[in-house]
Amino acid sequence: TSANIDLDRSSRCGYPEVIFCEGKTSASLVEIFSTLLESNQRCLGTRISEEQAETVLKQFPQAIYNQTARTVRIPEKDAAFDEKLIAGEIAVLTAGTSDRPVAEEAIETLTWMGYEPDFILDVGVAGPHRLQEQLPRIQNVSAIVVAAGMEGALPSVVGGWVSCPVIAVPTSVGYGASLGGIAALLGMLNSCAANVTVVNINAGFKAGFIAGLIADQKHSTS
Amino acid sequence: TSANIDLDRSSRCGYPEVIFCEGKTSASLVEIFSTLLESNQRCLGTRISEEQAETVLKQFPQAIYNQTARTVRIPEKDAAFDEKLIAGEIAVLTAGTSDRPVAEEAIETLTWMGYEPDFILDVGVAGPHRLQEQLPRIQNVSAIVVAAGMEGALPSVVGGWVSCPVIAVPTSVGYGASLGGIAALLGMLNSCAANVTVVNINAGFKAGFIAGLIADQKHSTS
Amino acid sequence: TSANIDLDRSSRCGYPEVIFCEGKTSASLVEIFSTLLESNQRCLGTRISEEQAETVLKQFPQAIYNQTARTVRIPEKDAAFDEKLIAGEIAVLTAGTSDRPVAEEAIETLTWMGYEPDFILDVGVAGPHRLQEQLPRIQNVSAIVVAAGMEGALPSVVGGWVSCPVIAVPTSVGYGASLGGIAALLGMLNSCAANVTVVNINAGFKAGFIAGLIADQKHSTS
Amino acid sequence: TSANIDLDRSSRCGYPEVIFCEGKTSASLVEIFSTLLESNQRCLGTRISEEQAETVLKQFPQAIYNQTARTVRIPEKDAAFDEKLIAGEIAVLTAGTSDRPVAEEAIETLTWMGYEPDFILDVGVAGPHRLQEQLPRIQNVSAIVVAAGMEGALPSVVGGWVSCPVIAVPTSVGYGASLGGIAALLGMLNSCAANVTVVNINAGFKAGFIAGLIADQKHSTS
Amino acid sequence: TSANIDLDRSSRCGYPEVIFCEGKTSASLVEIFSTLLESNQRCLGTRISEEQAETVLKQFPQAIYNQTARTVRIPEKDAAFDEKLIAGEIAVLTAGTSDRPVAEEAIETLTWMGYEPDFILDVGVAGPHRLQEQLPRIQNVSAIVVAAGMEGALPSVVGGWVSCPVIAVPTSVGYGASLGGIAALLGMLNSCAANVTVVNINAGFKAGFIAGLIADQKHSTS
Amino acid sequence: TSANIDLDRSSRCGYPEVIFCEGKTSASLVEIFSTLLESNQRCLGTRISEEQAETVLKQFPQAIYNQTARTVRIPEKDAAFDEKLIAGEIAVLTAGTSDRPVAEEAIETLTWMGYEPDFILDVGVAGPHRLQEQLPRIQNVSAIVVAAGMEGALPSVVGGWVSCPVIAVPTSVGYGASLGGIAALLGMLNSCAANVTVVNINAGFKAGFIAGLIADQKHSTS
Amino acid sequence: TSANIDLDRSSRCGYPEVIFCEGKTSASLVEIFSTLLESNQRCLGTRISEEQAETVLKQFPQAIYNQTARTVRIPEKDAAFDEKLIAGEIAVLTAGTSDRPVAEEAIETLTWMGYEPDFILDVGVAGPHRLQEQLPRIQNVSAIVVAAGMEGALPSVVGGWVSCPVIAVPTSVGYGASLGGIAALLGMLNSCAANVTVVNINAGFKAGFIAGLIADQKHSTS
Amino acid sequence: TSANIDLDRSSRCGYPEVIFCEGKTSASLVEIFSTLLESNQRCLGTRISEEQAETVLKQFPQAIYNQTARTVRIPEKDAAFDEKLIAGEIAVLTAGTSDRPVAEEAIETLTWMGYEPDFILDVGVAGPHRLQEQLPRIQNVSAIVVAAGMEGALPSVVGGWVSCPVIAVPTSVGYGASLGGIAALLGMLNSCAANVTVVNINAGFKAGFIAGLIADQKHSTS
Ligand SMILES: Nc1ncnc2c1ncn2[C@@H]1O[C@H](COP(=O)(O)O)[C@@H](O)[C@H]1O
Ligand SMILES: Nc1ncnc2c1ncn2[C@@H]1O[C@H](COP(=O)(O)O)[C@@H](O)[C@H]1O
Ligand SMILES: Nc1ncnc2c1ncn2[C@@H]1O[C@H](COP(=O)(O)O)[C@@H](O)[C@H]1O
Ligand SMILES: Nc1ncnc2c1ncn2[C@@H]1O[C@H](COP(=O)(O)O)[C@@H](O)[C@H]1O
Ligand SMILES: [Mg+2]
Ligand SMILES: [Mg+2]
Ligand SMILES: [Mg+2]
Ligand SMILES: [Mg+2]
Ligand SMILES: [Mg+2]
Ligand SMILES: [Mg+2]
Ligand SMILES: [Mg+2]
Ligand SMILES: [Mg+2]
Repeated sequence: TSANIDLDRSSRCGYPEVIFCEGKTSASLVEIFSTLLESNQRCLGTRISEEQAETVLKQFPQAIYNQTARTVRIPEKDAAFDEKLIAGEIAVLTAGTSDRPVAEEAIETLTWMGYEPDFILDVGVAGPHRLQEQLPRIQNVSAIVVAAGMEGALPSVVGGWVSCPVIAVPTSVGYGASLGGIAALLGMLNSCAANVTVVNINAGFKAGFIAGLIADQKHSTS
Repeated sequence: TSANIDLDRSSRCGYPEVIFCEGKTSASLVEIFSTLLESNQRCLGTRISEEQAETVLKQFPQAIYNQTARTVRIPEKDAAFDEKLIAGEIAVLTAGTSDRPVAEEAIETLTWMGYEPDFILDVGVAGPHRLQEQLPRIQNVSAIVVAAGMEGALPSVVGGWVSCPVIAVPTSVGYGASLGGIAALLGMLNSCAANVTVVNINAGFKAGFIAGLIADQKHSTS
Repeated sequence: TSANIDLDRSSRCGYPEVIFCEGKTSASLVEIFSTLLESNQRCLGTRISEEQAETVLKQFPQAIYNQTARTVRIPEKDAAFDEKLIAGEIAVLTAGTSDRPVAEEAIETLTWMGYEPDFILDVGVAGPHRLQEQLPRIQNVSAIVVAAGMEGALPSVVGGWVSCPVIAVPTSVGYGASLGGIAALLGMLNSCAANVTVVNINAGFKAGFIAGLIADQKHSTS
Repeated sequence: TSANIDLDRSSRCGYPEVIFCEGKTSASLVEIFSTLLESNQRCLGTRISEEQAETVLKQFPQAIYNQTARTVRIPEKDAAFDEKLIAGEIAVLTAGTSDRPVAEEAIETLTWMGYEPDFILDVGVAGPHRLQEQLPRIQNVSAIVVAAGMEGALPSVVGGWVSCPVIAVPTSVGYGASLGGIAALLGMLNSCAANVTVVNINAGFKAGFIAGLIADQKHSTS
Repeated sequence: TSANIDLDRSSRCGYPEVIFCEGKTSASLVEIFSTLLESNQRCLGTRISEEQAETVLKQFPQAIYNQTARTVRIPEKDAAFDEKLIAGEIAVLTAGTSDRPVAEEAIETLTWMGYEPDFILDVGVAGPHRLQEQLPRIQNVSAIVVAAGMEGALPSVVGGWVSCPVIAVPTSVGYGASLGGIAALLGMLNSCAANVTVVNINAGFKAGFIAGLIADQKHSTS
Repeated sequence: TSANIDLDRSSRCGYPEVIFCEGKTSASLVEIFSTLLESNQRCLGTRISEEQAETVLKQFPQAIYNQTARTVRIPEKDAAFDEKLIAGEIAVLTAGTSDRPVAEEAIETLTWMGYEPDFILDVGVAGPHRLQEQLPRIQNVSAIVVAAGMEGALPSVVGGWVSCPVIAVPTSVGYGASLGGIAALLGMLNSCAANVTVVNINAGFKAGFIAGLIADQKHSTS
Repeated sequence: TSANIDLDRSSRCGYPEVIFCEGKTSASLVEIFSTLLESNQRCLGTRISEEQAETVLKQFPQAIYNQTARTVRIPEKDAAFDEKLIAGEIAVLTAGTSDRPVAEEAIETLTWMGYEPDFILDVGVAGPHRLQEQLPRIQNVSAIVVAAGMEGALPSVVGGWVSCPVIAVPTSVGYGASLGGIAALLGMLNSCAANVTVVNINAGFKAGFIAGLIADQKHSTS
Repeated sequence: TSANIDLDRSSRCGYPEVIFCEGKTSASLVEIFSTLLESNQRCLGTRISEEQAETVLKQFPQAIYNQTARTVRIPEKDAAFDEKLIAGEIAVLTAGTSDRPVAEEAIETLTWMGYEPDFILDVGVAGPHRLQEQLPRIQNVSAIVVAAGMEGALPSVVGGWVSCPVIAVPTSVGYGASLGGIAALLGMLNSCAANVTVVNINAGFKAGFIAGLIADQKHSTS
């Protein structure tokens, strides 16, 4: 077989291995998802193309495809997503409308983990009153994901208003000196707000996953 | 006065403003710490030089100075650090012995926040059995700080064994193509472990602060 | 002689040539300032060291030295600075206290040009209410200089509140991935606020000069 | 809806929010422009594709599309552009013919703001007499936009001849070590002419907007 | 003719010149391979496209084409590959399934040199037990090739378990701050494992070639 | 204790852990070397300062200090270096005289491993006959270390004349666009000679270690 | 008109303005060439596409198109190229066959200037005897152009054998850490051969032009 | 001995090997210069420190030391520099006064080669009339060296006025985004003037040497 899936990940890390679909054949994806489902694990595929998604959906009709997020989710047998999602714990924000795909990847990841995040779109710093109006929605959560491109200033501003961790995810939105997201990444790493931590450019999946793990700590009984 | 201290930060963000001492005069530091103490806030100064620390200690004999970490802590009036520190929630690891100063900055920050982290030194990947031996100490905490220089591989390896967030802090330990920590930073941002999030190079303060905020979520009653 | 001063600059560009003192001998500075004064031009020297300043002050007792800004100003014969300075036209802001030297270089430049800027220190985004309180002071000026290091987010935030040009000057304040001011520079160049324009890292002189030229347009009668 | 348009921007910043069209659906653009027009704001869309422009023109026949500039303008109801444009205040220059699209984006932005800039094409430094001949056209304006790629030397040369701010906009014209405009950007940031300020690579919109704001100061009566 | 093939390379360097096919016409490839075969040298072409391969296969039916590796091999007259391949000397590992093409280029190169490497796929550090299980296969070889993208941590981990040289080959697998393989390259160059040496990004050919030369030393009788 | 020495490394990797002395206290070095000697391992310290070396030599009079290489070696009890060193297997070359310290670090490492390399100094490409004269000394060895700064061309030229692996070690010799050794590093990674592999800038230790491991393969009986 | 051709260039700089065709319309090229021919200047267009060339050849049947070089030349009226070309003054070398297009751009430029360079292909350092054999052809010329990609070592090696200037032109041939020619560029800038000077990546035109100007000095009678 | 001086260089390359003094001991310099003088070659040492120069001058009283240029020259026995220097062939220009040391290194090199260059200081583009006034001095030479820091625009402007090669040497003069001379280097490599070629940052020696070689072509009788 072409892959060596880490079926033990769930027991070590809390969640099954997530599949990065870019560069894999559709056949290989079907094989991988089957292996996971057989060992009774729920699947998440990221960076899936429309063509790959079509094959996967044909094979697994129960799969949930999000074209904007470029994700596919498949629940374990006899289970379902979205049933008893935990709300009120996580917020996902974007600076502009163009940052939406990255934010949706985070949201899909969180849904797969069992959370229902609050989604707040297009509240970038050039129109500062827009964030001001949403402050009540972000001041009582356990973790906040903030996706921003260009200069990536929004996470710092959000960080100044809250007491939970802010997971900043730089996006490649912008041009010229944005260097494909490097400008936003550097900005976020140098945030003067102490509660801002950073993931890779366009890494909506990682941002969502970290946010989910933080919320998990609250619920863990150990 | 020469600074505009954010005395309101504690109520918005959970903890008072922390003072970045580099480039400030000793007189200015004394003034800033006095302002904070007067409004009954506990102080943390980072990147403090030996000379600055001497002046601060003369003025505030109750201050606790850590030369390796380059930090100073001052408890609010009638209070003390280290009294009822919460243990068992956070682990701080380093890959090599040279990463110690960054790890100690994280530990000082956590102590200031009220936590007593478990400190595990020098368990880098070139001697893999060393981490293996410590796994029990890291598999039941809420957050793990991992400081590593050179290629910065340790956070990924740690991430593969645990179910809590790993806050990776690249250090400037290394030479040549380590580019003052950029190599480790890039490595950590590209970690194949989904639970790894990253802060700035040598930012022990930030890594500790995020870890503390994560543990806080567990204790928050909201 | 060791320099070829552009004595005609004033007639072409509105102001005399300004002297970048770094790397010049004190003797050479005295010679250059004498040449300018002889042709009845007011002098401005930037990046002057304490040692250079001492020699210059000995030779020209009317010179005004600002140690923080690292500048020296000498008025033309029978004239004086600070007499009929134009106020209410320009504001100079900093994100942190460490950005002060760059801001003071801008202020010295503006004083030399005949302006008295309004100085607002330490209003960075991590404590957002601080800028909020100062909005009235920045909403009726012709130009605003904003100095910020680390992630350099303040110019974008200021830009969202005003209708005049914002001249952003990145500072080298920060560490690690701040790359000596490159992170702030990139952030400012990618600002989502349309009224933000940028000068070189630590270029307080240039930021002040552009701000002065903008205010000049208002007063020009052509 | 998919966007959170900042309808209040005009009152805070003097002009309505400008729409960055790249990455938005045509339907979304129509929705956004409708929202702006309904609140009686004139529209400017930048980075619009031919396909997007077609849809927009079908919906808003009064829209003015510039294919070279990749912009679309729509006047507010019962108004028109180009009626009482203010001339004689702003010049737009290019170093080569290939910099034209960026210059035209600046010109479209200025037209939308109510200005009629003087356009001077292809006067780069390799043929120095060409600028010499145009000096009278640039020595009595309030602001000059200079678009240049490759080594980006033209803004410095222009700066040496004038007393108003020069807004330098680096273009991605060039190859090899031009690094997609980074060489020109760095050159302009390091300009030895004190009156040069810089915007992002290919940011004709921003350069034009800043130039317009500078001219505005002259006309403001506050 | 369009090339100046180094027919003497085999006598100086042990193996004939290998042909980098990218950017050459199919006709030129046929001409080059003919020249090599005429002087009785076995051929290896790397970075060959499907289209180029088709022409080459038509002309030399004995050629062996590997589409994943993008290589073609042609044995010298009256000889054959794969007959008496030396096994047990070299291992080739990948961190993920997406690193496979680079690993296969190394394997093809080794086959052409007369070796049969042991291929171990998808044993990256996020699932650490996977490498653990394969240790016996890598602790008795003369050289190990490790292909990894993203943070490129696997070579360091492998290096910690073995006493032979580890040839690390960074791949361009990843996104964002992976910078097309630069992050993995820097990580590998800074490996804290002393037995790790590095080749260019995606340079499967070079990694395989060096591994083969190391095994050769064992067999050389000089 | 301040370090967690990997005493098991010798059995896994063939040689004991080597100590990177930079940033460690002299007391800590003495402690580490004692631990190693007690478990009967020979010591190698790299990047040792004159001051550190002095303390170490006082404590271990049998230690061998090389000031140019910045190394110290200590033989295991009742043993000695230099007794039965294996000659004729490894050559170490430099392009210029300034590359000597890096080459000597490689030589010290090899001596510690039991090899006596052939040292060929100052045969850079600007004087091509110099290498030509030394060809017989490099055409019968198992591995060649080549240290070069500036453009780093020597490894490619050496690679074109030999059939064994060439370990290229870029040095930071040069100025300006040499970028502290990055230019040489990039050059070596892109070598058109297939037998060139690369280690970190100034990593004489690593280059020597890899060369020793290659020679080891020849002598291993497995 | 869309361009402001520098018709005076020939009298100032010795040769007419050369046209960079990339990004210009075919119509615009015809207009520009007509303008040049009308003022009796010979034309050179570089970076011309097949489509552009077709239109130009239709309009000017006397034009000479080189598809590999991507150039077109048009002689002034009643003149011709290639008639009395000066031979024996300039050599053009390449390291590999893939560097040919850049070398041909240099050759076309030299032909247009009136020179007939000696062309030596594929003599890179991995096969060192190939250059050795050609030394007589390069030791009596006035200038040598050397095109090389990957590590760009050939100019240094050539420089070590000759007493005339070597104009090094890095090419974008390579992959991974070649960074589109940056590695070769840096290598050449750091050449240890004192007679090597450098032009932009892929700048065959510039390399040829400089070589021609050097030969011109020999013939100038001033 | 510690060096392998290329005594044959003079016969191959026209001039003896030049000694890069940085990082060599004074004793080693004396040894190298003695070797050169013994074989009757004139010496040039670059990047010499004051301390090194003192030792050299004590040993060779005939040596000529230039502190600004950081060079030392020693004539061959019974010869002298400066006797029959060729004037009128080469001009050396600087943009600012701070570029003087680099220009003087070029001048010293040229004097050592037998040329007397014309030195034109401080004619940068911000005061454009200054170059204008000097045009007659640069329009009849064989080669021009132009040293400039910051944005490095002067070589392009000079190139537009002359018909000989312009050797551009970027200097590290500047701050912030000048990146130690990288900005000027990139600018010069992208010069729109076709007659501009480039050497390494601060490489006054190389710039002078190339200029001398160009003038040599004129005098060569081959
Ligand atoms: N060409 C442009 N360059 C930079 N910013 C722009 C451009 N066009 C519009 N904008 C700004 O981009 C922001 C819109 O971002 P978004 O919400 O993603 O549409 C607004 O603040 C606009 O002022
Ligand atoms: N000069 C050197 N360059 C790179 N790595 C080294 C060097 N010297 C020792 N090491 C390695 O660095 C690691 C020690 O790191 P630390 O725990 O900080 O002392 C060990 O794995 C050594 O093998
Ligand atoms: N070590 C540190 N790293 C990053 N930020 C810090 C550090 N110490 C303090 N800070 C933050 O830096 C800001 C202070 O900036 P300033 O006004 O220049 O003192 C505050 O927002 C602090 O939270
Ligand atoms: N200032 C300089 N810049 C660049 N190369 C130089 C310089 N001075 C001398 N060289 C060259 O550097 C080489 C000497 O290197 P090394 O053997 O380390 O002394 C010789 O080839 C010289 O031609
Ligand atoms: Mg928006
Ligand atoms: Mg250690
Ligand atoms: Mg502050
Ligand atoms: Mg033109
Ligand atoms: Mg996998
Ligand atoms: Mg030498
Ligand atoms: Mg070839
Ligand atoms: Mg000057």
